[in-house]
Amino acid sequence: MQTQMPVDSLGVPRFVGVPTFMRLPYVRDVGDADVAVFGMPSDCGGPYRTGARFGPNAIRAQSIMLRPINPYQGNVNVFERLRVVDAGDSPVVPGYLLRSMDHIERTTARLAEAGAVPLGLGGDHSVSLPELRALARVHGPLALVHFDAHTDTWDSYFDGERYSAGTPFRRAVEEGLVVPERSIQIGMRGSLFRESDISQSLELGYQVVTTDEAIALGPDGLGQRVRERVAGQRVFFSFDLDVVDPASAPGVQTPEAGGPTAREILSMIRALTGFEIVGADVVETNPLYDGPGQVTALLAATVAAEVLALIALRR
Amino acid sequence: MQTQMPVDSLGVPRFVGVPTFMRLPYVRDVGDADVAVFGMPSDCGGPYRTGARFGPNAIRAQSIMLRPINPYQGNVNVFERLRVVDAGDSPVVPGYLLRSMDHIERTTARLAEAGAVPLGLGGDHSVSLPELRALARVHGPLALVHFDAHTDTWDSYFDGERYSAGTPFRRAVEEGLVVPERSIQIGMRGSLFRESDISQSLELGYQVVTTDEAIALGPDGLGQRVRERVAGQRVFFSFDLDVVDPASAPGVQTPEAGGPTAREILSMIRALTGFEIVGADVVETNPLYDGPGQVTALLAATVAAEVLALIALRR
Amino acid sequence: MQTQMPVDSLGVPRFVGVPTFMRLPYVRDVGDADVAVFGMPSDCGGPYRTGARFGPNAIRAQSIMLRPINPYQGNVNVFERLRVVDAGDSPVVPGYLLRSMDHIERTTARLAEAGAVPLGLGGDHSVSLPELRALARVHGPLALVHFDAHTDTWDSYFDGERYSAGTPFRRAVEEGLVVPERSIQIGMRGSLFRESDISQSLELGYQVVTTDEAIALGPDGLGQRVRERVAGQRVFFSFDLDVVDPASAPGVQTPEAGGPTAREILSMIRALTGFEIVGADVVETNPLYDGPGQVTALLAATVAAEVLALIALRR
Amino acid sequence: MQTQMPVDSLGVPRFVGVPTFMRLPYVRDVGDADVAVFGMPSDCGGPYRTGARFGPNAIRAQSIMLRPINPYQGNVNVFERLRVVDAGDSPVVPGYLLRSMDHIERTTARLAEAGAVPLGLGGDHSVSLPELRALARVHGPLALVHFDAHTDTWDSYFDGERYSAGTPFRRAVEEGLVVPERSIQIGMRGSLFRESDISQSLELGYQVVTTDEAIALGPDGLGQRVRERVAGQRVFFSFDLDVVDPASAPGVQTPEAGGPTAREILSMIRALTGFEIVGADVVETNPLYDGPGQVTALLAATVAAEVLALIALRR
Amino acid sequence: MQTQMPVDSLGVPRFVGVPTFMRLPYVRDVGDADVAVFGMPSDCGGPYRTGARFGPNAIRAQSIMLRPINPYQGNVNVFERLRVVDAGDSPVVPGYLLRSMDHIERTTARLAEAGAVPLGLGGDHSVSLPELRALARVHGPLALVHFDAHTDTWDSYFDGERYSAGTPFRRAVEEGLVVPERSIQIGMRGSLFRESDISQSLELGYQVVTTDEAIALGPDGLGQRVRERVAGQRVFFSFDLDVVDPASAPGVQTPEAGGPTAREILSMIRALTGFEIVGADVVETNPLYDGPGQVTALLAATVAAEVLALIALRR
Amino acid sequence: MQTQMPVDSLGVPRFVGVPTFMRLPYVRDVGDADVAVFGMPSDCGGPYRTGARFGPNAIRAQSIMLRPINPYQGNVNVFERLRVVDAGDSPVVPGYLLRSMDHIERTTARLAEAGAVPLGLGGDHSVSLPELRALARVHGPLALVHFDAHTDTWDSYFDGERYSAGTPFRRAVEEGLVVPERSIQIGMRGSLFRESDISQSLELGYQVVTTDEAIALGPDGLGQRVRERVAGQRVFFSFDLDVVDPASAPGVQTPEAGGPTAREILSMIRALTGFEIVGADVVETNPLYDGPGQVTALLAATVAAEVLALIALRR
Repeated sequence: MQTQMPVDSLGVPRFVGVPTFMRLPYVRDVGDADVAVFGMPSDCGGPYRTGARFGPNAIRAQSIMLRPINPYQGNVNVFERLRVVDAGDSPVVPGYLLRSMDHIERTTARLAEAGAVPLGLGGDHSVSLPELRALARVHGPLALVHFDAHTDTWDSYFDGERYSAGTPFRRAVEEGLVVPERSIQIGMRGSLFRESDISQSLELGYQVVTTDEAIALGPDGLGQRVRERVAGQRVFFSFDLDVVDPASAPGVQTPEAGGPTAREILSMIRALTGFEIVGADVVETNPLYDGPGQVTALLAATVAAEVLALIALRR
Repeated sequence: MQTQMPVDSLGVPRFVGVPTFMRLPYVRDVGDADVAVFGMPSDCGGPYRTGARFGPNAIRAQSIMLRPINPYQGNVNVFERLRVVDAGDSPVVPGYLLRSMDHIERTTARLAEAGAVPLGLGGDHSVSLPELRALARVHGPLALVHFDAHTDTWDSYFDGERYSAGTPFRRAVEEGLVVPERSIQIGMRGSLFRESDISQSLELGYQVVTTDEAIALGPDGLGQRVRERVAGQRVFFSFDLDVVDPASAPGVQTPEAGGPTAREILSMIRALTGFEIVGADVVETNPLYDGPGQVTALLAATVAAEVLALIALRR
Repeated sequence: MQTQMPVDSLGVPRFVGVPTFMRLPYVRDVGDADVAVFGMPSDCGGPYRTGARFGPNAIRAQSIMLRPINPYQGNVNVFERLRVVDAGDSPVVPGYLLRSMDHIERTTARLAEAGAVPLGLGGDHSVSLPELRALARVHGPLALVHFDAHTDTWDSYFDGERYSAGTPFRRAVEEGLVVPERSIQIGMRGSLFRESDISQSLELGYQVVTTDEAIALGPDGLGQRVRERVAGQRVFFSFDLDVVDPASAPGVQTPEAGGPTAREILSMIRALTGFEIVGADVVETNPLYDGPGQVTALLAATVAAEVLALIALRR
Repeated sequence: MQTQMPVDSLGVPRFVGVPTFMRLPYVRDVGDADVAVFGMPSDCGGPYRTGARFGPNAIRAQSIMLRPINPYQGNVNVFERLRVVDAGDSPVVPGYLLRSMDHIERTTARLAEAGAVPLGLGGDHSVSLPELRALARVHGPLALVHFDAHTDTWDSYFDGERYSAGTPFRRAVEEGLVVPERSIQIGMRGSLFRESDISQSLELGYQVVTTDEAIALGPDGLGQRVRERVAGQRVFFSFDLDVVDPASAPGVQTPEAGGPTAREILSMIRALTGFEIVGADVVETNPLYDGPGQVTALLAATVAAEVLALIALRR
Repeated sequence: MQTQMPVDSLGVPRFVGVPTFMRLPYVRDVGDADVAVFGMPSDCGGPYRTGARFGPNAIRAQSIMLRPINPYQGNVNVFERLRVVDAGDSPVVPGYLLRSMDHIERTTARLAEAGAVPLGLGGDHSVSLPELRALARVHGPLALVHFDAHTDTWDSYFDGERYSAGTPFRRAVEEGLVVPERSIQIGMRGSLFRESDISQSLELGYQVVTTDEAIALGPDGLGQRVRERVAGQRVFFSFDLDVVDPASAPGVQTPEAGGPTAREILSMIRALTGFEIVGADVVETNPLYDGPGQVTALLAATVAAEVLALIALRR
Repeated sequence: MQTQMPVDSLGVPRFVGVPTFMRLPYVRDVGDADVAVFGMPSDCGGPYRTGARFGPNAIRAQSIMLRPINPYQGNVNVFERLRVVDAGDSPVVPGYLLRSMDHIERTTARLAEAGAVPLGLGGDHSVSLPELRALARVHGPLALVHFDAHTDTWDSYFDGERYSAGTPFRRAVEEGLVVPERSIQIGMRGSLFRESDISQSLELGYQVVTTDEAIALGPDGLGQRVRERVAGQRVFFSFDLDVVDPASAPGVQTPEAGGPTAREILSMIRALTGFEIVGADVVETNPLYDGPGQVTALLAATVAAEVLALIALRR
């Protein structure tokens, strides 16, 4: 297990060596890893600001600033409890969304079937559908805990195409991959295309918590709400960086003014204890729009590390 | 009225076509439009970071991310209630502030006389004076609702020049364009040139609400305060992006550390129901300082869209 | 015809108004225009740096710096000889290359069938194939004059996909859209995937002039070479910005160190008189990689304006 | 005393002239100045994002936006109470941390011995140790009031080196420069290297207030806490920009997601009345990561100006 | 004279201290200086990309990389032959071009009357007219040696305004400040507004050398041409950065694709020996468009240093 | 040997996976590799623009655009002739130049002793000295072929420190690591600190070819000159990116205006056949100053690939 410990940044400066996620071993074969972090560099499904294909490596580059112990969860040392690896990236075929989705499904399946929790780094939000297809085959339909400024439950986009970054969570219900009655979408806000933009999620069976409602609930209230909702169901956790305010996450595809700060959103995530995550993704990081400080990528890496801590707490 | 509907971004990707405000028709003759969005690309009056001349097109470019329905105002579809057009830009003469102001006054007058509410995109804050000159001729003296980190009521700048981005709201009182007793300035903060920087506004008759006071009042309290203040008077709404914290609005001329977040400021604006806006501007967006994410321009566009919703509510 | 004259930048500052190509009228119906400039905002076919979807508007934004008279071609006033319009953008479907190509083919056909020379702004190089499909239907097989650091005659990319930014000029031969024996590729350089990267073009029948050979020939020699090659055939002119050195064109998908300077390449293009251009494109401009000076977009606009002058000379 | 008044930005535009701190006189000999602002352009001690050597001039460049009167402290005009100068920069020797530290110690000593309060602009946090060495010789051991996301009390870094940006406040205790029992560290957060990252500070005798605790205390509670802690001891105030959230301070060496906003942190500082500051620094500003808006440098300048006001209140 | 020696960058790192031009003394009173470098931070006259107000300090910041000895002119140590100072900036009044021009005229006069050669850093090209007004009073009409992509001899701009960055060299002839028959404009290129854009300069009496002609002449030929032209007349040397290709100078107001490289242009300047320069400027540097490497500002500083060497050769 | 083939970018998109140099295997143990590419992320020795510590990974990130076959050297497939690996980075100790140099010496020695040609990616130019120390122990004193705008043969920097980025090639002579009579420095230009800046190299025994002389010689002449100079001696090849003009290489520590273009410099390197390279480095790439196009890093990668081709030609 020793080889899965990250490089110690007190010993070797962070800028030394090619950056893997949290300086973890970079492997093709995940062996008996508990969690496999992997990239899904696909932005084929994105209707606007392209560039999320560079998200996984941008997150890796900033993740080297993170340290192994999480003081918000009782000083758990994630890497003493979990074997974590960086499993590299799924292949994709730029310009061919359906083929990219197939690749991502196969990669997720390979990791999940090896017994690891796949923790995917996007890529645009179209990646969640193939992830869910792979995971539902292993675990059955899942509860979805979904942070996002948008519901991503539209029926189709441009010319009626049914697969894009705006449709995965409608498809997931239609394909029986998630249990909407045990699922929750958090953080919706901003102007709407149709009056039904929110209600279409409710009609599918999801619970929706807007940004204003999430702030009003507070981290503890939100944690309680989520625990009640997912109650016993295995969980897929999907985090779209655009749920955060553009001040904290300028590097996304579809920024939406008026979101929670990074501190508010991290507090919410840290309150999400009490259920079992069998798959997760952190998506829509686009370094081309992120400025020299790369604050979006750093926040994405931090969210991924918080998810690791949530998983570690259950082991 | 059909032609005034924006291009549908679920049908045609946002990056297709030259960006007009919210993808609305771009017209010279505003016809029977209810609201005419227009640009005032003047930065002649700006004492420091120049570049607001590129503000109108920067706001247009980000406004294409906005959608027609506003869930914060009862799911009003702005474009079903209002005919809105993008009326292009006022001419300006760089280097000649007074001539630029004349152009802006004529453009505003043309729009207002056609029966449209002019909704101007700046440009530095010197543009508000010619707007008010045009509007006061049509509507008589107006109540001013003014969001800004600074009062912009200095008497003169450099060498005694009386017209600049720092003086419009003193001139507006002197010229009888606004009713200071029915007007309110919101968001002042930061260090001062003279002890009188705030009191000079009070002496002119304005009410002043500092950033700290606005936060303490909360959106509902502030909304009530404004409604009481403007009581029955027709309103000119002027929004300087620097009222927001530089984290949310780095792309301005005179950033002032320690302001409200984008979420806080949007909540305040959404509470400003109950009075009639006959003219408005959103000024001091400077894309040269805004970073690749262009979060300032997106916020400016969002503020403009919220103003549209406030107007729509009254129709 | 008066309405097709660009806005005069000596009268109205360049930053006033929404930027169309060279401040020309922006029309849906091209009427009796001689040349229709239009955008093809597709980057689905791009194997690496995505973002060319923003190319057309980036070129428009910089094209406003150009003036109507070309002193390199006898002071021809392009707009006195030609009716030129900005015909807007072709629709595209992000993530679905084949559907985007269909849209581009239809748009090109519409313009060509109206009698205009389509002058397309990319977008990645996959757009040239649908353009050629449309044009060959109107004009028959064309001579290709192609500036690029790469031949773009590979057989397939990723997983055997036959359509991408790397394959259009093989497909064009296979589909009989171009006459390779009357066609020429100019500017190839840099390292190769396979020994056959260049020879595959020769085998298809193209003539290939490397960057070093083009520099050695000089503008006049190259002009002569091209004239001899295309001899009497109608020409499709395709210009990939990556033919220029990255110092002059950093904002491209696949930069290749060691190319001609902007001055060298413009001199070459200015020497390309003596044949009839019935279609043209300027592709692979990617503003996300172009820096604040946007020198790539300005160069792309300048190349497009030089093409307009070449067309004007024949009228 | 007249010469120490800053240039009046209502008279001469801010962009005129070489920027010194708040447009103050730039002197080598501080004479009878009460406060000497000076730069410590050393980033030798920084384990990650280098560039803080450019911090002092970046802060100066933004500080010209500040004005002399502080409305949060009873409209005190700082420059009527205090003679303040910009004393230039300490020499440093890049690549030789220990020699750079010697230079900084000598510069600080020269200023302090002349009777001025040294207010240093970093540079990375390794500069605080030589400052404290100089100040403790003049004033005896000091109380430390330290804002930072990290404790900077590690024992050593890379290869056992004992001097770096991560170790100054352990060394300061060991060398008897501070009184840990009268000292307080505020703002710690984020993941940890070792379980002891926080407790090592407690073991040294410091009080630690995490970011979450500081937010919960609020400005008044925190001010009270600090006053009780430092009780009568002369204070060294050290402010690391990374205590603020990366949205408000992207331009730092080691950003830590989830911090207070600029408004929250400024409110805290403004509450820190009631004790005597004999030395201060504002460190870890790195303009290379700060984006075109330079919001980090502006915030650093604002913090320094608030410290000036705190000092002025005691005169 | 010792105090006019620049700070030695082998002794004190370049990033230490506030940057003055070449680290020279920064003075208000130029005393008996031979050359006074000064800033003219005016961009009021600029028709397009604003921001040249930040040019002088941007040039200073990069000039610290320059060293005192010029190996292209016989290893002359400029500062052993000439007393050179940085005389700070002329005041300007943003938004009021005519008043800014008055300030610049007064500042130039003050320097010239003190016996120094004024070497001005712009600012947009409108600054040359007030400089020439001041210099012609001292020296009589001057020969103009002018490097630029544009002639700047238009009659008026926007609404007929006769003063702007596009008109100074027509006004200079009309006002009798230059001797056009002894003057030369070098580097013109690019598209034209009117057929007369070049011929208007010829009609005024100027000689015009286009970019292509200058390249063909080569440095020696050009040097000879200029010497013959100015023959015995005292010279004002005006250098607009846009004469260089945008690859080498992206940070300008009106970039023109296809210019000489930095090496070519420096070789030309180094050949300009044999006449007496009594005033000079280096204008149109705009750091907002210059990218992180600030290559335009560095080139501007290098050009200014070459001018210093040309002056030193005559002493 | 198969495992040393780079990932095929026609099969897997370049943005998939963590980028190693040219997508080669990333190994700790170089086994029987012929060439070991490795990083030296040290910028401790840099007197000005810091950030070269991020150079190695920046070069790797751009190197993925390169392809295996070099058409300038007879279509040699580098990876069929040579086993090449990416050996990761040498450790360094930021702030402690001498310790960093020790690490680099040990790393270079380990690679050279394993039989590989070390091809190092900097890092600032101080890294060449420890490389030469390691290589001279294996191979004896070497001929130096050194491209740079500066000689880097000063005696000391700041406070007399003898080790920095400005002194390695004086130390190398003093320590007997190079044979100056068989060595050549190419590309010197720009202003000088002392008259002796160039002559100090001549006195040490080096041959010096200035930029102007190198351009005049042309690639073939320069190749001949170098071959004659090194005549039979084993060669260390050191390439400082600042030898190229800042237009082509803005991302360096000490840019020097007026250098060769990328095309000119690559042509020179391609002519350097006919001698045996036993070690090489490509230094001073600083991505923090390189702009979004990262053209400097791409050029650095291209230079490294050309060096690989030169080595491959001899096998």
